[in-house]
Amino acid sequence: MNSELNKPLILITNDDGAEAPGIYVLTRLMMQIGDVVVVAPDGARSAQSNALTVTHPIRFNKIEEREGLLRYSCTGTPTDCIKLALNEIVEYQPDLIVSGINHGSNSAINVIYSGTMGAVLEGCENGILSIGFSISSHSQDVDFTNFEPYVLQITREALKNGLPYGTCLNINAPNGTINGIRISRQCDGQWVKEFEKRTDPQGRSYFWLTGYFENHEPEAEDTDEWALLNGYISIVPTKIDLTAYEAMETINKWEF
Amino acid sequence: MNSELNKPLILITNDDGAEAPGIYVLTRLMMQIGDVVVVAPDGARSAQSNALTVTHPIRFNKIEEREGLLRYSCTGTPTDCIKLALNEIVEYQPDLIVSGINHGSNSAINVIYSGTMGAVLEGCENGILSIGFSISSHSQDVDFTNFEPYVLQITREALKNGLPYGTCLNINAPNGTINGIRISRQCDGQWVKEFEKRTDPQGRSYFWLTGYFENHEPEAEDTDEWALLNGYISIVPTKIDLTAYEAMETINKWEF
Repeated sequence: MNSELNKPLILITNDDGAEAPGIYVLTRLMMQIGDVVVVAPDGARSAQSNALTVTHPIRFNKIEEREGLLRYSCTGTPTDCIKLALNEIVEYQPDLIVSGINHGSNSAINVIYSGTMGAVLEGCENGILSIGFSISSHSQDVDFTNFEPYVLQITREALKNGLPYGTCLNINAPNGTINGIRISRQCDGQWVKEFEKRTDPQGRSYFWLTGYFENHEPEAEDTDEWALLNGYISIVPTKIDLTAYEAMETINKWEF
Repeated sequence: MNSELNKPLILITNDDGAEAPGIYVLTRLMMQIGDVVVVAPDGARSAQSNALTVTHPIRFNKIEEREGLLRYSCTGTPTDCIKLALNEIVEYQPDLIVSGINHGSNSAINVIYSGTMGAVLEGCENGILSIGFSISSHSQDVDFTNFEPYVLQITREALKNGLPYGTCLNINAPNGTINGIRISRQCDGQWVKEFEKRTDPQGRSYFWLTGYFENHEPEAEDTDEWALLNGYISIVPTKIDLTAYEAMETINKWEF
């Protein structure tokens, strides 16, 4: 890879796979900012969270090389992609890791299931500026046009300002008109009625994951869900330290 | 299930599979406290994080039924097990979800990769008191004897006191003598040299996940890693809200 001096090195992955429309858009945009290496799963790995492949080995294959762009597909999860890229593919540490653009929102509790955000948490864990981009539509034909200038603007601001240690960004866009940006917190809520039960030709039951998200605080205007429902892009600063510091004192009073 | 009045209902899972030694120990212990339903993966699902099965359906099968105990195996991930149990198996909401006892520590950043802790976060997300137990040995022959009275004591204290909303517990024990309990925070550190490269008989490269954990703050005495290395059980109160609240003001100053 012949990087020009002062051009940032940007590592891209996703969880929809190397051939998903969203990652092509993100790659095109990032090539306006820096040299790009894509290491993305060789197929859909949605809802893979921070899963790692431990029971069998993984591989990667170069699928494209041109000025300013190297693309690889990988047989693992999004988190595997980042680990493999950092350990075995890129020659020096990327300035930025971006993941997406995911087809489907990763707002609220979805952040803990998302493979897109799994890769972002992994980048952050490695001390690299990391951002996840998602759009609130699962359609393969979703129109990213309105989101694109914001993706560029947010990325440039992130590269200029950096982020606090252990912090990454979870960015979600509404599908359609965009009214602006809101710095938000992760909305409280939960998925309900999560399975559809069916019966196979042998009479045995099987279960498909489905359900819908129930917002526990629909009135709160500072959440990512509120932002999306009101036409704003939500930016949730997200951390990899899950410690509930505020609970430590309470538990210290337990009788052991 | 014929629950006695006032006996808590305890749901158990793990990521080592329904037949792992650790889950048998945990089941035996929990039967001293309440009625137990086990819904565990039908094989090893280590490092599955909060992964969900979305590309194919899942199933469960009853594998044992006796007084105070129902056991099921499930074809999904640990998080799938909890979702399926809550939606399709238990008749009312469990008082407690416990996961483990995991063969291998889930301290420090391992919390985000762990299937054991994925199930715990899922229980917590559903508003249920949830605890993960792990021991610092991957051996199938690991001796849980020293840990057992602590598992019972911590569980009883948790049932008595409850936990703050959105908070669960990540509990790790050293392998061997136990000096006591430390309420700890998630240690900062990272995995390095993460892959072993091999060549297959066709001359193509493949990569096994391996590596070792590098502690970034070995002197700090308030971390889970310090506790384990000094013979203490670590209890890390852990949250499902990943928002980096302290970073929101900074990002609000960015130029959008």
